[in-house]
Amino acid sequence: MTKAQSNTMWGGRFDEKPDDIMEQINASIDIDKRLYKQDIAGSKAHAAMLAAQGIISDEDKAAIHKGLDQILGEIESGAFEFRRDLEDIHMNIESRLKELIGDAAGRLHTARSRNDQVATDFRLWVREACDAICERIEVFQETIDILEEQHADTIMPGFTHLQVAQPVTLARHLEAYACMLNRDKLRFIDCKDRLNKSPLGCAALAGTGFPIDREMTAKELGFDRPVNNTMDGVSARDFANEFLFCCAQAGLHLSRLAEEIILWSTPQFGFVSLSDAWSTGSSIMPQKKNPDAAELIRGKTGRLTGNLVQLMTVMKALPLTYNKDLQEDKEPVFDSFDTIILCLDAMNGMVASANWNTDKMLAAAQSGYSTATELADWLVRELGMPFRDAHHITGRVVKIAVTMGLRLDQLSLDDLQSVEPRITEGIFDYLSVETAVKMRK
Amino acid sequence: MTKAQSNTMWGGRFDEKPDDIMEQINASIDIDKRLYKQDIAGSKAHAAMLAAQGIISDEDKAAIHKGLDQILGEIESGAFEFRRDLEDIHMNIESRLKELIGDAAGRLHTARSRNDQVATDFRLWVREACDAICERIEVFQETIDILEEQHADTIMPGFTHLQVAQPVTLARHLEAYACMLNRDKLRFIDCKDRLNKSPLGCAALAGTGFPIDREMTAKELGFDRPVNNTMDGVSARDFANEFLFCCAQAGLHLSRLAEEIILWSTPQFGFVSLSDAWSTGSSIMPQKKNPDAAELIRGKTGRLTGNLVQLMTVMKALPLTYNKDLQEDKEPVFDSFDTIILCLDAMNGMVASANWNTDKMLAAAQSGYSTATELADWLVRELGMPFRDAHHITGRVVKIAVTMGLRLDQLSLDDLQSVEPRITEGIFDYLSVETAVKMRK
Amino acid sequence: MTKAQSNTMWGGRFDEKPDDIMEQINASIDIDKRLYKQDIAGSKAHAAMLAAQGIISDEDKAAIHKGLDQILGEIESGAFEFRRDLEDIHMNIESRLKELIGDAAGRLHTARSRNDQVATDFRLWVREACDAICERIEVFQETIDILEEQHADTIMPGFTHLQVAQPVTLARHLEAYACMLNRDKLRFIDCKDRLNKSPLGCAALAGTGFPIDREMTAKELGFDRPVNNTMDGVSARDFANEFLFCCAQAGLHLSRLAEEIILWSTPQFGFVSLSDAWSTGSSIMPQKKNPDAAELIRGKTGRLTGNLVQLMTVMKALPLTYNKDLQEDKEPVFDSFDTIILCLDAMNGMVASANWNTDKMLAAAQSGYSTATELADWLVRELGMPFRDAHHITGRVVKIAVTMGLRLDQLSLDDLQSVEPRITEGIFDYLSVETAVKMRK
Amino acid sequence: MTKAQSNTMWGGRFDEKPDDIMEQINASIDIDKRLYKQDIAGSKAHAAMLAAQGIISDEDKAAIHKGLDQILGEIESGAFEFRRDLEDIHMNIESRLKELIGDAAGRLHTARSRNDQVATDFRLWVREACDAICERIEVFQETIDILEEQHADTIMPGFTHLQVAQPVTLARHLEAYACMLNRDKLRFIDCKDRLNKSPLGCAALAGTGFPIDREMTAKELGFDRPVNNTMDGVSARDFANEFLFCCAQAGLHLSRLAEEIILWSTPQFGFVSLSDAWSTGSSIMPQKKNPDAAELIRGKTGRLTGNLVQLMTVMKALPLTYNKDLQEDKEPVFDSFDTIILCLDAMNGMVASANWNTDKMLAAAQSGYSTATELADWLVRELGMPFRDAHHITGRVVKIAVTMGLRLDQLSLDDLQSVEPRITEGIFDYLSVETAVKMRK
Repeated sequence: MTKAQSNTMWGGRFDEKPDDIMEQINASIDIDKRLYKQDIAGSKAHAAMLAAQGIISDEDKAAIHKGLDQILGEIESGAFEFRRDLEDIHMNIESRLKELIGDAAGRLHTARSRNDQVATDFRLWVREACDAICERIEVFQETIDILEEQHADTIMPGFTHLQVAQPVTLARHLEAYACMLNRDKLRFIDCKDRLNKSPLGCAALAGTGFPIDREMTAKELGFDRPVNNTMDGVSARDFANEFLFCCAQAGLHLSRLAEEIILWSTPQFGFVSLSDAWSTGSSIMPQKKNPDAAELIRGKTGRLTGNLVQLMTVMKALPLTYNKDLQEDKEPVFDSFDTIILCLDAMNGMVASANWNTDKMLAAAQSGYSTATELADWLVRELGMPFRDAHHITGRVVKIAVTMGLRLDQLSLDDLQSVEPRITEGIFDYLSVETAVKMRK
Repeated sequence: MTKAQSNTMWGGRFDEKPDDIMEQINASIDIDKRLYKQDIAGSKAHAAMLAAQGIISDEDKAAIHKGLDQILGEIESGAFEFRRDLEDIHMNIESRLKELIGDAAGRLHTARSRNDQVATDFRLWVREACDAICERIEVFQETIDILEEQHADTIMPGFTHLQVAQPVTLARHLEAYACMLNRDKLRFIDCKDRLNKSPLGCAALAGTGFPIDREMTAKELGFDRPVNNTMDGVSARDFANEFLFCCAQAGLHLSRLAEEIILWSTPQFGFVSLSDAWSTGSSIMPQKKNPDAAELIRGKTGRLTGNLVQLMTVMKALPLTYNKDLQEDKEPVFDSFDTIILCLDAMNGMVASANWNTDKMLAAAQSGYSTATELADWLVRELGMPFRDAHHITGRVVKIAVTMGLRLDQLSLDDLQSVEPRITEGIFDYLSVETAVKMRK
Repeated sequence: MTKAQSNTMWGGRFDEKPDDIMEQINASIDIDKRLYKQDIAGSKAHAAMLAAQGIISDEDKAAIHKGLDQILGEIESGAFEFRRDLEDIHMNIESRLKELIGDAAGRLHTARSRNDQVATDFRLWVREACDAICERIEVFQETIDILEEQHADTIMPGFTHLQVAQPVTLARHLEAYACMLNRDKLRFIDCKDRLNKSPLGCAALAGTGFPIDREMTAKELGFDRPVNNTMDGVSARDFANEFLFCCAQAGLHLSRLAEEIILWSTPQFGFVSLSDAWSTGSSIMPQKKNPDAAELIRGKTGRLTGNLVQLMTVMKALPLTYNKDLQEDKEPVFDSFDTIILCLDAMNGMVASANWNTDKMLAAAQSGYSTATELADWLVRELGMPFRDAHHITGRVVKIAVTMGLRLDQLSLDDLQSVEPRITEGIFDYLSVETAVKMRK
Repeated sequence: MTKAQSNTMWGGRFDEKPDDIMEQINASIDIDKRLYKQDIAGSKAHAAMLAAQGIISDEDKAAIHKGLDQILGEIESGAFEFRRDLEDIHMNIESRLKELIGDAAGRLHTARSRNDQVATDFRLWVREACDAICERIEVFQETIDILEEQHADTIMPGFTHLQVAQPVTLARHLEAYACMLNRDKLRFIDCKDRLNKSPLGCAALAGTGFPIDREMTAKELGFDRPVNNTMDGVSARDFANEFLFCCAQAGLHLSRLAEEIILWSTPQFGFVSLSDAWSTGSSIMPQKKNPDAAELIRGKTGRLTGNLVQLMTVMKALPLTYNKDLQEDKEPVFDSFDTIILCLDAMNGMVASANWNTDKMLAAAQSGYSTATELADWLVRELGMPFRDAHHITGRVVKIAVTMGLRLDQLSLDDLQSVEPRITEGIFDYLSVETAVKMRK
């Protein structure tokens, strides 16, 4: 089909061909060809249903299935020629099907419109994307699991305001991210469950007069059931927004871990040393390792947030039902998917291969009087001291330690009793970071 | 407590008072006082648990409960004096409690930190917000239900590209929005379920050495269970982002309906006439009714999207655990809640009281050859014509109708047969908008 | 250079090759190859300066220039092989240069770093992008100029709240967009002027000890002067944010016009009829013309806003100086440029070829009592009536017209005097839309 | 004026009062009362012009001016009672003026509409906001100037990838921010210059038939001239978007410095120690200083970005001219103004009072082999070595230093010559951070 023919697709009345710029702004094939698998699956299900309902013949159905299978093969082998003048993936496949099987191809489009077709394809794609992301999250969670076991007793400082606050274990710190990612995973599952209704059969917007069986195509494609309302079916894109939000939120979580890895990789912190495979270096400063992957993960938060804003802006104030603006829905979704997969994989590889400098972590935890809270709690618990008084006493003890240049657990009982005579030997069970951490298991 | 005293809260070492601007940027009481109810509930649960565990006495618990109840009353009656120098809702209540019950107030803060306290309060607040929004969505859905019954047979044009495409009913059009809002509701429910874990007991970040019972406080406050990880518990805000997304997405749906109401209110469309209570007028053009409420609902999409971007930006690359940046979390959440409630209520009132000009809708549906698809489908179904051929024939028929200035159902059989001789009388069962709509029920 | 060699770029200490995913997340060549022209221009200027300063020999400079010219030719002819393992455009060109001219290639990088190199390339690119956009804006402004002349007397309704308010001319309505675009153009010019300082010579971040002449390279590349501060020079990206904002704001203006074209293209409004070259049609509804280009322009506002949010998110809280996050800066800039150019061209083509239905516009202007304000103003002016009273009288007159089904200028003097006896024949000079418009020229 | 009366403002035809929720969503007085000064200035200029043109009498003008001056006094003294049922600042002032001066108040609104009135007020407000922000930027730049003088020789590490790269001075580091803020200032000046055209006289949208003098009111109010196009005049809000972008971009710059201050305040870096007035402490860890102000500045980037997205979303696809959506324009602008002023003041106070730990900075600069680039440059310069070879040699030298646990300037000439025999004593002029920094001045 040439450009001129493509034009006659809209009947004979149009005198002019589309302007070149019109064709350029209108064509979506460069983007939506990623839907080829879903488009073919949807068409096969539709053809099977049409035959089952007696709307097309079994021969036509068989020809359509065979033709579509061949096209699938051609696309996957790289032999398929995508054409911009055919606008989108649907017309590219339909046109090729006509070349392969002739008139039967035309009957495939009975009781269907591009509006419900693309809505179906896109939901199928996002559904699979959710699954794929969940898998990658689980891979990274397993990495964290292993590290949690290895570092159950690795003591590091817990920070508030990026100031040392209390000692924790590396296991607990990493587990925090496993928990965040778990909620991310649950969000993707919710997103997938919510979108899993079939828009096939909504046709252009109002359904069709043909006696179609929407339950059958829904079942065939793994949907829970058909959507309730045909106009909603073709114009809803909240599932795509929800997917983009889920990606952006997961990206935010990764950006927090990325930030920490960047901090921890500085000589000043020195908690972690990235493997060569996950750093870049400097030709003249061979000791230097730049945490490029972590920086890129942090930076890619931008595109994940931007993609969400993009589609939300598109959807603002859009009247029902299909409007061409909706063509802008796929690119951000594809990009966010690629990005979050890449970030998860990179984070996993980087964390799995990192070297943890447990001595530096311990030393940092021991600095900063991170067990002061334990001392205060002991005063409350053992001496029944009111909370604010205990804090006051503790403050005075810390001051002494600061002056003497000692850790709290290095002070003598005399030092402690000089501030509060009722303090006993028992306090020393709480002043080291090791005991403080153990206390809280 | 004066400003100077507030300063000594951090111990005696600080020589200078906070700068005025520091106090201004630091204080959150103007915003977070909305958490008073949650803060008091959380404190009561915490005190009950401390007593049950023997950490404080039953007398202290009773005094704390009584004092907190009194403060609740003071706040709700407007008698409570909020003080900026006390920074936030937690310190305002604690300070008043001390005035009321003395030293026992100090024991309330045992085994707790402001970090887990505010996380608990905020989750409780968002949980209730989800419930409140779901209720309002249901109110609006009921309004739509009533309209669906009233307008089950009201025919209007269904649009694609804002061009008349096929006839539908007003019922189906409005039902599309009920479906969208239903997904919005489900999202709020998912959000609420996901956040419903108790951070109380996470303390500053690492938990506490006191023998607290986190299950008990969780149960008391209606949480499913305590959060798994204490560091995550105090620093997670994805629940707030998710809530903001849910609000923004619901707002997008409302913006689509608002846009349609604005369009339909123009004399050019004339499908709907807003009630006086939901319009503004012009003193010199008394026939004019401006759809201000619809425009404001459409415009408020901006703040809902902006609020989401705000908090997502805040969370980007924030290291664990608590950072003061998190203080910026509440204002967007409160504002999005107020906004979505206001928009839902306004939309409900506006739609419930609107007058639907069914004649204008019908006339519009009858224009634009909106049953052309029916004709094409008939040719495919009855004559076994290939899809593309049927479209071609239909195009020629429409052209004749355009030339003659008639609707499709006003053409004679002769007119139709002049294009395709095999067309029979039976076609007239499909060419009026009424039959076309009936066909698709 | 193979992957293994690329690795040794950082010296011999790295034992492992980069992980495949690391290479994937790290490489930017697919995006930044668009900077090839700027990169070559920057390198030529740098080499010329090095030679002028005696830092490299004239022979080396000549070899470098010749080699770079050849590479430019290879890239523009499509013969150049871009390699992902060489990461970015700078290393791709440097590597090829070495193949072509040997050791002299190595001397090109004297007193330079990739940090100042990419900052220079990127500013050059954005500068040219600003110029290109301004040109396209002017093209569209000329189209509007022509239409303004043609439609200086074409009367249409001016809307507030999408309700007919007062008559205006199509010329004035379109001129409003010319004014908006003019401010957009001025913003691009400001953006360009502000960024036009040369970062070349900032080296990695701290400048260089070589006796370079930054003024010379700045002048050679058309910059106003070198940047003041080397650390700012390599890490500033506000110029890119500003460019993205300018694009997004221009896109917002286009989205407003696109919305109006979509509205005006409905049969309900019917003010404009798009040319075939700028519409898509329906094969079965040949009278139908979908304003796809306008819808796409409206939809592309999303990506322009999203791109801005993307880079602003990236830049949030990024410490000085170069961080790998900055690699995410180019894709949104390139995409916004392509998008705004496409939207301007499409809008220009669509508007230039549109058919304006002046009868429909006039009729719409005559409906809606759009000259009621003229009547009120006449009462104030001629009878000295207070403003609010005049509005009240006008309201009563309009009511009579509504009741009689007449326009204001179709009422008789008796009709008018029945409300306000002092009204004279002279009022009829103001009640038609033609006179109302003329009054305001 | 009661609610019922307010309703009759639109003439007698409206049977119902506005719904309570309608009133709630519609009223803007809580926000737009901040425009009171601009509104009064605009009205005085308008009245003066009306009198000069003979449209109202000099007595009326005098009464209006006197009345408005009294209202200004009432508002500034807090005596003015703002009423929600009067919707906005314009009606509140007009209503009070009528109480004060009777009928003459009604004549003030001659040849004017709320549409041009609010556009004028808002531009005046934003113009003043730009000036105020520029002043605060200058204050902070002066603080940096002073620090630059004090720390012209204070050596600190310059970072790339948050890894020590090359030594710089604190002066240069801070100067980078002065440069960024300077561009921010220039953007605000451009914004102000661009918006400084008067919309007064555009009336509702189409101008007015009264013989007004728009040049006179423009001049009176300090505008450069009237806007060119009346429809653009009442519906343009790109000036507000531009202002919001300028604020957001300045906020991004501050967020970068805030991030660095947070990092530098950690014990791990220890470069800076915030004054007590700009920190918060811990009652039990008296040595601890939390950089709350820096964290809040960093966090407030969120609202600045969110506000920009808010208004950009509002403006998307809004048809001409005035739509009620525009009422959402002021709140983000006011909030961004307050936020950026607060952040600038807080940053200024925090930086001005900070203690710089120059020893720690120097030590950090000396670590990390930050002068390795100097060594490589020396090899290129003095020995004519190709760039890549020089890097290789340098890498080997650094390795030796790493092994020996020495800084580069602590190696002996023998050590250096063991790698490259041609190295001479002269190299030691370049290996210390002091000389490296001096070299680059």
